[in-house]
Amino acid sequence: MRSTRRVIGIDPGLTRCGIGVVEGRPGVARLVGVDVVRTPSDLPLGERLLTVETAVADWIARSRPDVLAVERVFSQHNVRTVMGTAQAAAMAIAAASRRGIPVAVHTPSEVKAAVTGHGRADKSQVAFMVRRLLCTPGLVAPPDATDALALAICQLWRGAALDRLAVGGWS
Amino acid sequence: MRSTRRVIGIDPGLTRCGIGVVEGRPGVARLVGVDVVRTPSDLPLGERLLTVETAVADWIARSRPDVLAVERVFSQHNVRTVMGTAQAAAMAIAAASRRGIPVAVHTPSEVKAAVTGHGRADKSQVAFMVRRLLCTPGLVAPPDATDALALAICQLWRGAALDRLAVGGWS
Repeated sequence: MRSTRRVIGIDPGLTRCGIGVVEGRPGVARLVGVDVVRTPSDLPLGERLLTVETAVADWIARSRPDVLAVERVFSQHNVRTVMGTAQAAAMAIAAASRRGIPVAVHTPSEVKAAVTGHGRADKSQVAFMVRRLLCTPGLVAPPDATDALALAICQLWRGAALDRLAVGGWS
Repeated sequence: MRSTRRVIGIDPGLTRCGIGVVEGRPGVARLVGVDVVRTPSDLPLGERLLTVETAVADWIARSRPDVLAVERVFSQHNVRTVMGTAQAAAMAIAAASRRGIPVAVHTPSEVKAAVTGHGRADKSQVAFMVRRLLCTPGLVAPPDATDALALAICQLWRGAALDRLAVGGWS
């Protein structure tokens, strides 16, 4: 098992999809890259989905992550946006699987607990801790981007623990 | 405008995804092909999504439809399966868009009304009318398959009407 891992985190959405790549090991995380993909709501759904997929595929090609981490989408989410969220997540998951990259899924509370120690932390606290953990206090990034980085950090922490428990992969 | 259209209908789902292709014009529909794609629930989500996409892409390549019709997914659906339904629909829509094929979306009640005259018809009535409209009384096909055919027939009927109203495409 390599001690350093690279993870791409996806905060899925059609209007805004956060993409964050980090590298490290439990307790140590370094920022590799961050992005937010936007698709206009007046574009046909198929083109919006392909835009998300292309962006994720480009980031996978550029950053060569070991694993993709994505937020588990619940139907209890905002019903107005949950379909777009689920469909954007599907495109990201498919983009990873197409390239043989394992996919890990974390709940929002797992992510919050991993970066703040508290499963019900608010967005600003998550963003604050992401900047602190990555040693990038001046990082200018919207919440979708810091949420994607939080997912990637969560996978870096938890994935390693799961690795030790179950021999055989990160997903 | 060509008088005859070919439509691929998708009844999206991860466990079972119905695919039905019909050809015709309002009032006249002919069966081209029908299929149900199944993916086992113990397969990783990414592989299930790719299996659905590959099946839809294969049917598009084989049947060369003018338009893909898919059911609008509501968050009011069964919450246990709605995420898989939305994600399977995303793969079908992306498969069509990738090939430049327009995508049309219909609500369940639009589909039922188109084939039975009643927006709240039950599944067996939809299946009965699909067989009658396609002149295939002995067609052996599960409900996912007849639902996909009903969607395609709905698009054949309604799409033509929308064409006359709005010059410029079927989606």
